[in-house]
Amino acid sequence: MKLVRYLRDGAERTGAVVDGHVLDLGDTPLVELLADDTRQGDVRAQIQRADAAALPPLDPAALRAPVVPGKILCLGYNYRGHVPDGVDPTADDPDFPDVFVKTPNTLAGPADPVVVPAVATDVDYEGELAVVIGRRAHRVPLEDALDHVAGYSILDDVSDRAWQRRQSQWALGKCFDGFAPLGPHLVTPDEVGDAADLLVEVIRDGEVTVSQSTATTIFPVAYVIHYLSQVMTLQPGDVISTGTPQKLPAAQAAHRPLEAGDAVTVRIARIGELTTTFTAPPEASA
Amino acid sequence: MKLVRYLRDGAERTGAVVDGHVLDLGDTPLVELLADDTRQGDVRAQIQRADAAALPPLDPAALRAPVVPGKILCLGYNYRGHVPDGVDPTADDPDFPDVFVKTPNTLAGPADPVVVPAVATDVDYEGELAVVIGRRAHRVPLEDALDHVAGYSILDDVSDRAWQRRQSQWALGKCFDGFAPLGPHLVTPDEVGDAADLLVEVIRDGEVTVSQSTATTIFPVAYVIHYLSQVMTLQPGDVISTGTPQKLPAAQAAHRPLEAGDAVTVRIARIGELTTTFTAPPEASA
Repeated sequence: MKLVRYLRDGAERTGAVVDGHVLDLGDTPLVELLADDTRQGDVRAQIQRADAAALPPLDPAALRAPVVPGKILCLGYNYRGHVPDGVDPTADDPDFPDVFVKTPNTLAGPADPVVVPAVATDVDYEGELAVVIGRRAHRVPLEDALDHVAGYSILDDVSDRAWQRRQSQWALGKCFDGFAPLGPHLVTPDEVGDAADLLVEVIRDGEVTVSQSTATTIFPVAYVIHYLSQVMTLQPGDVISTGTPQKLPAAQAAHRPLEAGDAVTVRIARIGELTTTFTAPPEASA
Repeated sequence: MKLVRYLRDGAERTGAVVDGHVLDLGDTPLVELLADDTRQGDVRAQIQRADAAALPPLDPAALRAPVVPGKILCLGYNYRGHVPDGVDPTADDPDFPDVFVKTPNTLAGPADPVVVPAVATDVDYEGELAVVIGRRAHRVPLEDALDHVAGYSILDDVSDRAWQRRQSQWALGKCFDGFAPLGPHLVTPDEVGDAADLLVEVIRDGEVTVSQSTATTIFPVAYVIHYLSQVMTLQPGDVISTGTPQKLPAAQAAHRPLEAGDAVTVRIARIGELTTTFTAPPEASA
């Protein structure tokens, strides 16, 4: 299933995407509809009965972030780099995931432009596979970890590198208002299959700047959930963003900070595409 | 005013502390009662009319965290160390505040024991002045910053140093469930006066281990609010914890990780005292 949150007559609703049309599922938050097998079965039955042609077409401009996470946890350095033939790609693997937090003010919907803040000078994108927690997770064994996943989405971990580098901790570079566009929808695990080999691509202003499979992550999804849940209780709706691959060498060489007018698309196989446009601050706060 | 959140008949209420007794103010969250001058005036009038002797005594065991913050933002390295006479204490001041985030699962009330997690090996305390935001703050000028403060409280920024040191980012060492006891109450700015010279003390199992004034902070409260608000919109109820002074040399030398059975009191002049007991995990999750 592909589930969305969307605005209808000014109110936020949950919907299922059926052949480019949207089946309204009421106002219950999306993760609650996925909370147990019975409720999920119910939604599946509604989708099966639906006549797509009779439904309104999906309006991308009406989409909201699929969940409102209590926590947005992000991984740094979770993809292996390119190494020459004969070199063990795992040789430099760290022992532990490097985790940081994006605050709730960073959340943006898939249709929201991201403001390039007046004080930011070095804004960058990171296209990432986002895991949405479906069931409470406290100290879960590795083998049960994926049972706690509601589905997958896409997060653009936007940063200002200048603010990120000012101190030892990255929080301020990561936590500008709107710096975590999430969406466009949540895809349930049955449609994704094994998330351990999905191609992640980033397209900036028409050029592919990132292209690497989740097969090159150091810590896979199940391990990350298991590991985080040793520390903190994960709650339904929490989002874990699994890190970004490096930019392709040519893109890295040509990189310039994002500016108003730029557009970045993150495309992940079997998940979808999230396109974010960047915009100038409103006059009043410029 | 000293305001609290407390449990009465199983429901959470707001109250004012009047001579050790509690005047019930209803179930409206505390920051909403401080949202504007009219509402604040209302509360002050109720307190003035109250007959303390006729009110129930304050029950410390019923206290809850005074606010449920959307964001808990914490400062690292914000106090100057001790330097020999003749050495400029500001010589090593960093250019920018170092900021990290504690996730919502860390929040604990003043009466809640903190579980020393089974996987933690090096748990430590940090007694800190906590600033509670009262009014939305987006890019506020330095001179207006304190207008956005609802009041002050105390936060014990509990960490596991071993997990904190595992990676570049401190999040996991800082974000164990319950690692941010907050309270016991909120004190409004009119009772605190200038927060720029308050003695912060920590008493661990009867011994004073920290004793240093907020006069030795590098970035004062107004500056921190101004600075953070350039990046993120601060909302009512958000908490900024202003960092910890170093332990006294003898306490540093004698330091051992916190264990079940330990108690830590953070005492801040004109604010109050927050005592946290540490406990073993429940059997089921041990």
